[in-house]
Amino acid sequence: QSVAAIVFGDGSESRLYPLTKRRSEGAIPMAANYRLIDAVVSNCINSNINKIYALTQFNSTSLNAHLSKAYTGVSLGKEGFVEVIAAYQSPDHQGWFQGSADAMRRCMWVLEEYPVTEFLVLPGHHLYQMDYQKLIEAHRNSKADISISAISAVRNHSSGLGLIRLNSEGQVIEFNVNLETKPINESSHNIACGYSSSMGIYLINRDIMAKLLNEYYPDANDFGSEVIPGAVSMGMKVQAYLFDGYWEEMRSIEAFYTANMECIKTSTNGYNFYDRDSPVYTTPRYLPPTLISDAVITDSVIGHGCILNRCKIKGSIVGTRTRIGDRVTVEDSIIMGSDTYQQYVQSNGGDRKCLDIPIGIGEDTLVRKAIIDKNARIGSNVLIINKDDVQEGEREANGYIISGGIVVVLQGAVIPDGSIL
Amino acid sequence: QSVAAIVFGDGSESRLYPLTKRRSEGAIPMAANYRLIDAVVSNCINSNINKIYALTQFNSTSLNAHLSKAYTGVSLGKEGFVEVIAAYQSPDHQGWFQGSADAMRRCMWVLEEYPVTEFLVLPGHHLYQMDYQKLIEAHRNSKADISISAISAVRNHSSGLGLIRLNSEGQVIEFNVNLETKPINESSHNIACGYSSSMGIYLINRDIMAKLLNEYYPDANDFGSEVIPGAVSMGMKVQAYLFDGYWEEMRSIEAFYTANMECIKTSTNGYNFYDRDSPVYTTPRYLPPTLISDAVITDSVIGHGCILNRCKIKGSIVGTRTRIGDRVTVEDSIIMGSDTYQQYVQSNGGDRKCLDIPIGIGEDTLVRKAIIDKNARIGSNVLIINKDDVQEGEREANGYIISGGIVVVLQGAVIPDGSIL
Amino acid sequence: QSVAAIVFGDGSESRLYPLTKRRSEGAIPMAANYRLIDAVVSNCINSNINKIYALTQFNSTSLNAHLSKAYTGVSLGKEGFVEVIAAYQSPDHQGWFQGSADAMRRCMWVLEEYPVTEFLVLPGHHLYQMDYQKLIEAHRNSKADISISAISAVRNHSSGLGLIRLNSEGQVIEFNVNLETKPINESSHNIACGYSSSMGIYLINRDIMAKLLNEYYPDANDFGSEVIPGAVSMGMKVQAYLFDGYWEEMRSIEAFYTANMECIKTSTNGYNFYDRDSPVYTTPRYLPPTLISDAVITDSVIGHGCILNRCKIKGSIVGTRTRIGDRVTVEDSIIMGSDTYQQYVQSNGGDRKCLDIPIGIGEDTLVRKAIIDKNARIGSNVLIINKDDVQEGEREANGYIISGGIVVVLQGAVIPDGSIL
Amino acid sequence: QSVAAIVFGDGSESRLYPLTKRRSEGAIPMAANYRLIDAVVSNCINSNINKIYALTQFNSTSLNAHLSKAYTGVSLGKEGFVEVIAAYQSPDHQGWFQGSADAMRRCMWVLEEYPVTEFLVLPGHHLYQMDYQKLIEAHRNSKADISISAISAVRNHSSGLGLIRLNSEGQVIEFNVNLETKPINESSHNIACGYSSSMGIYLINRDIMAKLLNEYYPDANDFGSEVIPGAVSMGMKVQAYLFDGYWEEMRSIEAFYTANMECIKTSTNGYNFYDRDSPVYTTPRYLPPTLISDAVITDSVIGHGCILNRCKIKGSIVGTRTRIGDRVTVEDSIIMGSDTYQQYVQSNGGDRKCLDIPIGIGEDTLVRKAIIDKNARIGSNVLIINKDDVQEGEREANGYIISGGIVVVLQGAVIPDGSIL
Repeated sequence: QSVAAIVFGDGSESRLYPLTKRRSEGAIPMAANYRLIDAVVSNCINSNINKIYALTQFNSTSLNAHLSKAYTGVSLGKEGFVEVIAAYQSPDHQGWFQGSADAMRRCMWVLEEYPVTEFLVLPGHHLYQMDYQKLIEAHRNSKADISISAISAVRNHSSGLGLIRLNSEGQVIEFNVNLETKPINESSHNIACGYSSSMGIYLINRDIMAKLLNEYYPDANDFGSEVIPGAVSMGMKVQAYLFDGYWEEMRSIEAFYTANMECIKTSTNGYNFYDRDSPVYTTPRYLPPTLISDAVITDSVIGHGCILNRCKIKGSIVGTRTRIGDRVTVEDSIIMGSDTYQQYVQSNGGDRKCLDIPIGIGEDTLVRKAIIDKNARIGSNVLIINKDDVQEGEREANGYIISGGIVVVLQGAVIPDGSIL
Repeated sequence: QSVAAIVFGDGSESRLYPLTKRRSEGAIPMAANYRLIDAVVSNCINSNINKIYALTQFNSTSLNAHLSKAYTGVSLGKEGFVEVIAAYQSPDHQGWFQGSADAMRRCMWVLEEYPVTEFLVLPGHHLYQMDYQKLIEAHRNSKADISISAISAVRNHSSGLGLIRLNSEGQVIEFNVNLETKPINESSHNIACGYSSSMGIYLINRDIMAKLLNEYYPDANDFGSEVIPGAVSMGMKVQAYLFDGYWEEMRSIEAFYTANMECIKTSTNGYNFYDRDSPVYTTPRYLPPTLISDAVITDSVIGHGCILNRCKIKGSIVGTRTRIGDRVTVEDSIIMGSDTYQQYVQSNGGDRKCLDIPIGIGEDTLVRKAIIDKNARIGSNVLIINKDDVQEGEREANGYIISGGIVVVLQGAVIPDGSIL
Repeated sequence: QSVAAIVFGDGSESRLYPLTKRRSEGAIPMAANYRLIDAVVSNCINSNINKIYALTQFNSTSLNAHLSKAYTGVSLGKEGFVEVIAAYQSPDHQGWFQGSADAMRRCMWVLEEYPVTEFLVLPGHHLYQMDYQKLIEAHRNSKADISISAISAVRNHSSGLGLIRLNSEGQVIEFNVNLETKPINESSHNIACGYSSSMGIYLINRDIMAKLLNEYYPDANDFGSEVIPGAVSMGMKVQAYLFDGYWEEMRSIEAFYTANMECIKTSTNGYNFYDRDSPVYTTPRYLPPTLISDAVITDSVIGHGCILNRCKIKGSIVGTRTRIGDRVTVEDSIIMGSDTYQQYVQSNGGDRKCLDIPIGIGEDTLVRKAIIDKNARIGSNVLIINKDDVQEGEREANGYIISGGIVVVLQGAVIPDGSIL
Repeated sequence: QSVAAIVFGDGSESRLYPLTKRRSEGAIPMAANYRLIDAVVSNCINSNINKIYALTQFNSTSLNAHLSKAYTGVSLGKEGFVEVIAAYQSPDHQGWFQGSADAMRRCMWVLEEYPVTEFLVLPGHHLYQMDYQKLIEAHRNSKADISISAISAVRNHSSGLGLIRLNSEGQVIEFNVNLETKPINESSHNIACGYSSSMGIYLINRDIMAKLLNEYYPDANDFGSEVIPGAVSMGMKVQAYLFDGYWEEMRSIEAFYTANMECIKTSTNGYNFYDRDSPVYTTPRYLPPTLISDAVITDSVIGHGCILNRCKIKGSIVGTRTRIGDRVTVEDSIIMGSDTYQQYVQSNGGDRKCLDIPIGIGEDTLVRKAIIDKNARIGSNVLIINKDDVQEGEREANGYIISGGIVVVLQGAVIPDGSIL
């Protein structure tokens, strides 16, 4: 009961663009029903950590709204809460948060409200299932000042969160932020020498936190690149907690796409949404069941309240309230769904081609290896197939971009009848 | 804002047996996500009636639990509530409620808490969408003492709720409780004479209610057969409000089955669960999306959080958390789903045949024109096909009954591998 | 996490009459803000028992409403709930609950929903602060079948819940239901012999519960007088858990009065409502602060949202929304407060004397050693002083009774101007 | 149902300093139980406006937390919400909100989510009771583009929100932002000419809003000084809605103090917290009743859960959980109370003088005409009397400032034993 979790909701603005055009990374819809941040917040709840602060700043509106709606109904136990701390101006600080450490420093007066003994610093946009109590136990048993959760460097040599070298007691004796660019063979050499990849998850004793932020590194903005390496170099007792489960840090549209595809598999190595003991929480909804006219559905996940007509869905994620028209084929794609049922199509008599297209996917359309963001209006006879096999393409004026060979249709975009993407 | 709704949750114990073995009619699962009473309570909310009392007595536990969970989160507006009044003993009355009028009489001290002007008496197990405000408006405009909602006698000549004859002003001049048994041709004669069927929905002025229950008919137990006919015979101004939408009173397993089948159709004459302006409320849930391996689904409704393996589903309702095994076919059936995900199957080494069967539908099983109640465990290689074409059959010891040719597997029943029903 | 609490809300109909005229014992207002049952339910929550069933039958409406409102907002942790099970009819049982054991037996199908290991049976109308985890721990350490919480027989020789005799290992070797009437000197003899008083709190292993109710004592109605003594006599391992804190079982109006008076004392031996670690939960309310014109207040507890004019309040409990007029004196009394602010007084021109009296206490009135139940309307120049020093008096037609020398004004009673009680 | 309210929670950083040192104006505690913003949000709810956006930026943490906790439990009706929009960075806008119009412009994509017809722009820190439906009705009847709520210029010649001149139809023909500094006699001349003071409350048609912000005044930052005067000068139909109730805009510590003092009076011209039809909403709490040992309380408001020992309280507001020691006198003061009950005083053996002082007001202390912010620790034998009769004084290092002759002790400040302020 004595650990407070600090969840950073923002991530990077650009890595998952255009999914972050109107929202922060933590708010990106995931696996039909969820938002990315639900995984980390659910980890906290399932680990009996019930004082959860979410710090947000970038495009925070939908994340804040989600966190308010999703977790007010969840039973968090006595004195438990999920409290959003949005970046704010104060008489002393007119600027935005300059990084995770700066944000933490400026919010310490709030975060110290309860007599917690450690702070658990968590990126809000990673996907994994971890029992943080085990991390806390290991931390306390080793009487560490700081513990870092880390995974084998082989599996994630490309983690941008730092490479750490351990001694035989599991203590971190080196923290290298920039090793990630090294070639793999050198990297594998590193592992031989006891290197692991930081997951960006830090458990820090309360008094150590205060000293690091205010005394030793009062100008540091970031934990991963400044405060933690500093603590290691000062000789603080920084311990590694090795994690060997599934972990995905969503460094690109491709990684996001792959993580969603993992959720589809019944016997998955990925993230498990069906575990009764570790449920994943999200906004509770009053959605009707999914109505299906005539569909062949293979290896797919179907969200709540969809309306599926005569269609084929294969290897895909179909989000809440998705409407799919007759003779549509969806393959290897993520359809994020929509926020409301559209009652009728507004028509202004002018550009009918666009305005008459309702939210969802029109008849005779084919969607293959694409991400369709929320509330998009895909017309009839559309082919979303990356026909020119482009790897990276900026077509934002036309309502989509291509990243890693995946077509990403923007939130609310209109794709006219007959388009070929 | 000045009408209180009194919803009777119980209905009849026997009409929908065995679905009422452990619950009242209002609590029967409906259309994958709902309970029967949700339709009436949602009508109230969508009609801006926000003082809703639910009176229960028979097998009330799951209905009470449902009402508490489903409607505490719903925004009912200022001073709005859904309050369950369970039958209770008091120093003055040691007995149970003896009928709708008796229940109302005994609860008047609670029901009069707010300064409402009319009481709206509602059966809780009917399925229809009505804007009660229109009924209220008509009632007030006609300065009636009582208004009865009624439908054309042709459509529902068999309603057990009474036949009413109107004069040209729409006033009820005759209320016959027992006309229902008359042959159809006489019944159609009746319509020519202005007969309609009561829907059992009464809007009664507050002072009239008090007088009817305490002064005029202090010994009457029931509204439909005693109090209302009495009011008509006394010459009170009893007005009919004619309703011409879909209405189903669930008089038999067959009627319940048919009403569920109506929900499947995309262009339905039945009940519409997808109307944004009149949403149907129910327990909000944190269920994962439905996971489908390889299914051909036709004209069906799929609830939240199902796990469907290689199967064929046709013309069926599949309730929340239903697990369906490989090579299963479900046709023209209602699967009510389950309350939890079963983590593992308890085995006591003894009667493995039964205890090892997990909740859901096992491999290679065929279910046709059946109702599978909640948490049933259907084994592998089972045929639920009413093989002997029985119309009515009592096989409760074997976990099912047959009613109107429909096999109804009991809640929590175990159907061993290889059974043929 | 594996214990379910079964709270019996009813108590006795007659012991605290007339406070139980319209409510069960558990629903009696207590200490200005609370209901009696809040103490026991809060004990559960503060002991991390989060599966709480409340069984009710007698005058249960206000208790059910209270439990629904009070505990839906409380964070009960994962899968936690306070579920009301009101007495109900079923095809098999048409009667009411015949006692605590009968109620438990009939609800076993609900109570066994979760895989709990023990049931904790609790009377809902006792006042005490206990950490049930300690009881559970002792129970498990001693590998008992049943544990009974008990207190020193000296302090409570009159407990009606049974006297128990222990051997040196704390095992119950004798359970006497009827010893209570024995004279004190014999009773103190008993203590020398190791007698203690049962508190009516039983922790029973799940499988033992099933056997006791269904196999060994299938006809027993009550735990305290039938099932538990039977278990002892059968030689089951029944262990005593001795409790030495404050405990009050509310056997009379006088005991209820005294328990309230205890709450007033700042350094109390009684029940502590101000303990941050063990908060007492109740309905959260949006009441304004208390407004005081000119009051001298001594040794009193003042509820939320009162309006106190020029008055003297001494040694009293003043409940929520109480309005006290000018020149009123309230001494050694319990004013339970009211459910609403009265906007205006309805007047029908007739019996003005009564109908014009607003809820609260009128001007120039003196209230001494009395209990004023909710929503009572005490006029001006009234003396409630038990002028004839009656010990027991039945004046219900006049709106009050006298019990143990304490005047109890009934809920909603009207005491006309100038009355002397 | 078709109006969205936009509440600006921030106000000015400096006007009410130091009450805004750690919070925005809207979050300042008011009248023992409330926050300033509760008045405006409650106005919305009581006017049946249920789409409420609160825009915040300055010191927003406690305001955001308050809005989340206070209004999630309130029944806001179908599709109702109180949604906080905290200032955020986006790819297009890296800066903070530059003013009310800029904030509105940047959030239009959120605010346009529902098909509202008008936006109601509201300052969040004003104190008044208004039925906005009357404003909306007048607006629609006059077919105005914009309506401004205004009061008689005499009463509030100093309003900094602009002076408006009306023609005989109530249309605004002149909007002067800077007239406020004119001497009173000229101001009264103005009234003769039909001048009124703007209350900073604007009702603006949806399409007009879009045109004003994006087409006509794309660079304007503020409504009151730029957009509204511009609309008037363009000849738009800007109508005045005259309001003659109590209204306080909190332009100084003195005004805040006076408004609190108004709340104390039983027959008040100020703000009424006891109106059943227009309740003031705030965070629901589980606080115990107030415990009073021996107090003489005159013309005061006492919040929930206080512990008052032998003390005199006169003409004061005493906030939630306030603890007042023996022989304390509080006169004409505002004690804001505390956030928690302090269990014990931490002592580090060093500077005992400060650290041993618990939250609340110590023994033998006198507080006169002061504001004690939350969680302050006032020692024993302290005199807070503004002994040197200072009007304006900056003693922040000592834990207080003096403004308009009122001593304001800072949030969490420690005032050592024996201090004289």
